[in-house]
Amino acid sequence: MAAALLSDFATEIIIPLCAVIGILFSLIQWALVSRVKLTPNGPSNNNKNGFSDSLIEEEEGVNEHNVVVKCAEIQNAISEGATSFLFTEYQYVGIFMVVFAILIFLFLGSVEGFSTKSQQCTYNVHKKCKPALATALFSTVSFLLGAITSVLSGFLGMKIATYANARTTLEARKSVGKAFITAFRSGAVMGFLLAANGLLVLYITINLFKLYYGDDWEGLFEAITGYGLGGSSMALFGRVGGGIYTKAADVGADLVGKVERNIPEDDPRNPAVIADNVGDNVGDIAGMGSDLFGSYAESSCAALVVASISSFGINHEFTAMCYPLLVSSIGIIVCLITTLFATDFYEIKAVKDIEPSLKNQLIISTVLMTIGIAIVSFIALPSSFTIFNFGVQKVVHNWQLFLCVCVGLWAGLIIGFVTEYYTSNAYSPVQDVADSCRTGAATNVIFGLALGYKSVIIPIFAIAISIFVSFSFAAMYGIAVAALGMLSTIATGLAIDAYGPISDNAGGIAEMAGMSHRIRERTDALDAAGNTTAAIGKGFAIGSAALVSLALFGAFVSRAGIQVVDVLTPKVFIGLIVGAMLPYWFSAMTMKSVGSAALKMVEEVRRQFNTIPGLMDGTTKPDYATCVKISTDASIKEMIPPGALVMLTPLIGGTFFGVETLSGVLAGALVSGVQVAISASNTGGAWDNAKKYIEAGASEHALTLGPKGSEPHKAAVIGDTIGDPLKDTSGPSLNILIKLMAVESLVFAPFFAAHGGLLFKL
Amino acid sequence: MAAALLSDFATEIIIPLCAVIGILFSLIQWALVSRVKLTPNGPSNNNKNGFSDSLIEEEEGVNEHNVVVKCAEIQNAISEGATSFLFTEYQYVGIFMVVFAILIFLFLGSVEGFSTKSQQCTYNVHKKCKPALATALFSTVSFLLGAITSVLSGFLGMKIATYANARTTLEARKSVGKAFITAFRSGAVMGFLLAANGLLVLYITINLFKLYYGDDWEGLFEAITGYGLGGSSMALFGRVGGGIYTKAADVGADLVGKVERNIPEDDPRNPAVIADNVGDNVGDIAGMGSDLFGSYAESSCAALVVASISSFGINHEFTAMCYPLLVSSIGIIVCLITTLFATDFYEIKAVKDIEPSLKNQLIISTVLMTIGIAIVSFIALPSSFTIFNFGVQKVVHNWQLFLCVCVGLWAGLIIGFVTEYYTSNAYSPVQDVADSCRTGAATNVIFGLALGYKSVIIPIFAIAISIFVSFSFAAMYGIAVAALGMLSTIATGLAIDAYGPISDNAGGIAEMAGMSHRIRERTDALDAAGNTTAAIGKGFAIGSAALVSLALFGAFVSRAGIQVVDVLTPKVFIGLIVGAMLPYWFSAMTMKSVGSAALKMVEEVRRQFNTIPGLMDGTTKPDYATCVKISTDASIKEMIPPGALVMLTPLIGGTFFGVETLSGVLAGALVSGVQVAISASNTGGAWDNAKKYIEAGASEHALTLGPKGSEPHKAAVIGDTIGDPLKDTSGPSLNILIKLMAVESLVFAPFFAAHGGLLFKL
Repeated sequence: MAAALLSDFATEIIIPLCAVIGILFSLIQWALVSRVKLTPNGPSNNNKNGFSDSLIEEEEGVNEHNVVVKCAEIQNAISEGATSFLFTEYQYVGIFMVVFAILIFLFLGSVEGFSTKSQQCTYNVHKKCKPALATALFSTVSFLLGAITSVLSGFLGMKIATYANARTTLEARKSVGKAFITAFRSGAVMGFLLAANGLLVLYITINLFKLYYGDDWEGLFEAITGYGLGGSSMALFGRVGGGIYTKAADVGADLVGKVERNIPEDDPRNPAVIADNVGDNVGDIAGMGSDLFGSYAESSCAALVVASISSFGINHEFTAMCYPLLVSSIGIIVCLITTLFATDFYEIKAVKDIEPSLKNQLIISTVLMTIGIAIVSFIALPSSFTIFNFGVQKVVHNWQLFLCVCVGLWAGLIIGFVTEYYTSNAYSPVQDVADSCRTGAATNVIFGLALGYKSVIIPIFAIAISIFVSFSFAAMYGIAVAALGMLSTIATGLAIDAYGPISDNAGGIAEMAGMSHRIRERTDALDAAGNTTAAIGKGFAIGSAALVSLALFGAFVSRAGIQVVDVLTPKVFIGLIVGAMLPYWFSAMTMKSVGSAALKMVEEVRRQFNTIPGLMDGTTKPDYATCVKISTDASIKEMIPPGALVMLTPLIGGTFFGVETLSGVLAGALVSGVQVAISASNTGGAWDNAKKYIEAGASEHALTLGPKGSEPHKAAVIGDTIGDPLKDTSGPSLNILIKLMAVESLVFAPFFAAHGGLLFKL
Repeated sequence: MAAALLSDFATEIIIPLCAVIGILFSLIQWALVSRVKLTPNGPSNNNKNGFSDSLIEEEEGVNEHNVVVKCAEIQNAISEGATSFLFTEYQYVGIFMVVFAILIFLFLGSVEGFSTKSQQCTYNVHKKCKPALATALFSTVSFLLGAITSVLSGFLGMKIATYANARTTLEARKSVGKAFITAFRSGAVMGFLLAANGLLVLYITINLFKLYYGDDWEGLFEAITGYGLGGSSMALFGRVGGGIYTKAADVGADLVGKVERNIPEDDPRNPAVIADNVGDNVGDIAGMGSDLFGSYAESSCAALVVASISSFGINHEFTAMCYPLLVSSIGIIVCLITTLFATDFYEIKAVKDIEPSLKNQLIISTVLMTIGIAIVSFIALPSSFTIFNFGVQKVVHNWQLFLCVCVGLWAGLIIGFVTEYYTSNAYSPVQDVADSCRTGAATNVIFGLALGYKSVIIPIFAIAISIFVSFSFAAMYGIAVAALGMLSTIATGLAIDAYGPISDNAGGIAEMAGMSHRIRERTDALDAAGNTTAAIGKGFAIGSAALVSLALFGAFVSRAGIQVVDVLTPKVFIGLIVGAMLPYWFSAMTMKSVGSAALKMVEEVRRQFNTIPGLMDGTTKPDYATCVKISTDASIKEMIPPGALVMLTPLIGGTFFGVETLSGVLAGALVSGVQVAISASNTGGAWDNAKKYIEAGASEHALTLGPKGSEPHKAAVIGDTIGDPLKDTSGPSLNILIKLMAVESLVFAPFFAAHGGLLFKL
């Protein structure tokens, strides 16, 4: 077993260096975006970039001044709404964090009765390890750090998104290419900030903990798992709370505005319109960001825990142990180069270039990353080593680990493209769904549901193959690094993802500011491309969640000291079938939550229309803030039942039924949840784009179904409304269900192993 | 270990005796139904029962003669349509049976290279067992017997159902009670015939096989598993083919008749009306019957296989080995007594008595059966014995086995009542769904889906508890007898179930024969009660399918010689996640099949309306037979893809990936499929009854939503149409998916164990 080529010292330099480069790059992007001024200029004053573009207003002879002022006003309202949501959320997050931190400390501390004596190591009986009380303390600290990092990244992401939306609108006056770059750069700020921050904080935490733990790698990395739990539990607030918020505002605004009052979408007279725009940021930016950050933190932690009890940890090979972090580091550099392809190497000239450009981002980053992984694998790993595999050590070669990471990376791309095939209206599945609107809403729903069911087939095979390859080569470590492989291009993925809601908001602002319909057309084109990439992003998030939660499950099983999870035992089987039921229970809850929250919004919007005189004429402004507040309060209140289900299931399962049943629950929830999540997201995406297909009328076939207001279009709108909570709330929230239960089980594993299974002990 | 109280000789008498009693009872019911004459009498000629009821026609002064003649005509058309469907189906069934029989023989014969030499027994190395070639031959024979019994029972059930529907209509002229008794007795014919025939043929087969096998119980009962496979593969045709038939006809008739031509349901001018009525019998009677027969045959076979390698088989305790058959025997007697409560001990006087009477049937049979099981358990079993449990023998007491059967029986009742709660419009869940129609079809669909998701929670806990209790007490034998417990009251269950479509058809006939609306009201009341019990029956069928397939899975694992199915191995895990995906793939296929078949029907109905002059005026008769033929051909053709998925998955999985992966597939499909099936059935049932709730307008709340044609009602109709394929095709078909894959794996287990896993061997 030769040592790695890369020295430990070099590793200590490379990881923080890449993270800092990522942060700097994101600041540069921010600076570039901020050059678009939100203060009105004289009509002939050109943009400081040195370009001399003619504005649409000039061509149409409209006074620019008012438009810019209006844009700035609206952006402020959205930004304030978003901040107000975040601060309210943080109050609850704060309480949750304190309570849960205490819980972690008490549960883990009680494993050895709060003793401060060193204990025998689990996997090396000849060695003394740090006391359980230290693990409890450091787990609590890393939990808080993970949570704070997630919160911080989400906050900054929202800030830049709400900072960029009006700027995108203004740039759209110049050209579609400029608007695209503004929106995309802003997305990149979010993506790089999150990826680099996550890596940096994790790296610093490891180094600080090392001061205490020294070379007790097992203890060190077990304590680090709290970081994953922290990141993931914030994702509960982001995804579930955010998902409820965005759909409550959306459905509430539409039901009164479009249906009852017959005013268009994004009309400034609608009191819920700002809440709706805030919702896009809350759900798709903060929610998606915290979800992917959670996955990223969890898969890193899962890999590190297994590495610590493999030959890396036993032989104190620091560089090899840091392999997961090195993969993420190189990922930041790869994404940086990839971003330049969209912003500098290639210029968007027309609307039709947008979607290919975004898809190329995915392909370029995947190809480059394959090379990056190869380099890291061959310099950071010894040519052969052993990996802990449920009680035995398994010999693994570095090329095998390279394949594990690659298989995850490429599976992600495949899942992304399959998702696109089933949700983009450029292909036959969505066109067939649109066609079924001819015979009414019922056939539209039936075809849409069938499409969602069908769309799980290839992603599941892709996930299964990744699991088989990585599992066979390197057991649970392989799964964890495969998940990391899928997430290694997270910066690019998030940039693309955040781009969508920014463009969506830009369109809304154009509408509200009363700008020319030509600008609206441009922002709509940006938004349409964003819709498809959003679906791809969701596919990615679900795929990585599946791999991550399997890796966490494996780490949990190792940590709980279980050798086999045998389906042929009653304890495991009942766990499996109940676990497979949880995604249904959870979805029922989240769907109900959206309904209740939307109802409160409907009442408020109706109240304002009925009591504020002059609102419908546009002479009085509606009270946007109250609607934002209602969405905020309702979403936080309504996320309690589903949140409790997620957080309490492992605690109750582990404490009363023990680790075997809990293993079954985790496996069942994973294999069932991933299907429900994929089918819900894709069904919703397909309905959305079927409606857009009819509205756009871009083909002969589409023209026979339209125009807006025709019977087929009405049927399509019904499908779209049904799909909204499926694709934006209940579907993506399932990622959190399967990951959070697994990481929570992992953190509490020592307690469950020592004191769990009360019911069967009686 | 004391011997059983019941002597082997008594066992040999009791089982066939109970079966014969069941058959006789069903013949008596048939005779009673046939006393209702379908030939017109003089207006004052009373029914031969000796009652002198006044007919509604007399009260209303309508000529009775024409009505009776018309009823007879319509019944003939339905009966001919049903027979024509069955005979077409049988041609395909025949081909399938021959091909599959050859396949079974070749696969199983090849295990030992078609050697005719005796081989060493699997579980008793000191003994010689019959050659694998004999197992191949006898498995093939028992497969054919199982298939033929299922076909025969389905055929007779359809015959009596189509024989009884017009008679029920005619009796409705006298009183609702008389109509109820006619419909219920006809259902009982089906129920008892199926239960008793299934038992008798199985018993005779065992005795015939014994002539060759002697006391080689292991070989004998392994060969008998073919019986379960035969029964279950016919259920594929019944449930999947029948499900497609019934919904293609229903949707096709509605889309043209109700929507395009604006004529009421069951209008004789609609060319698809007879096909629609035939469909009720094909789907709900033949389909449900073959499904439950399959479950019954499979759980018996699974229990017998395990018994043969437990102390019962080792010590040649014939009575104890026949315990599963004795439970079924006593079940026939219990159901017989229960039936008398509905037909003789208690008289239905008003509409409101119908539903309680049917529900009482379930409660009475469950309570009586508990006593019956206690008696059988204490006289047929030794007080303690050992049961084979994946390689080891586990000591079990007779009271534990009693509890295993009971827990299944009572779990069935609980599942039934929970299903009722979520699908009957007497309770708040369906009323809430109806209320959500106020805001349109979209909210109706969202609430309905959420209801379906929620409705899985309690049934899954009930199934989990049954599994835990029976698994802990008596391993896979416990699961098998728990399934048998749930199915022990199958005769009553089927009677209630078949009652529904008979009443539904009776209403259709009343409409088509132009009878008084008062008669239609009575048949509608019968039908409404039938709807609820149909949902209960579906819950029952799914619950028992879950237990049965787990028992079969256990038997498969034993027979394949696997000791553990460890989720923590890549082979098993990929099986698990792909298995969990199969219900989605299968549902996508069946939903698409309904769509394609319905489309063909729509075209034909349109063609007839457009080309047959005088059809809309009612002066010319439509061509019913062509519509029946289209439904028949389309349903058989469209069931090929989903059927192939079910039949080929175990063969491909076992041959190429081996028994471990196949175990994972079976477990995954089971835990995921049961959720999809329950939620689909209940969502569909809830939408159906939400629509009926609005139409009936029986409460103040319901009146605010109606009447027919109001906006909320239109939204409810959309939900009902979406629910149709969910509750009648894709949902119940999943029972077949999970059971058939398991029993097929069991039958082919020796082949897979010997030659499987080709891909991993390379």
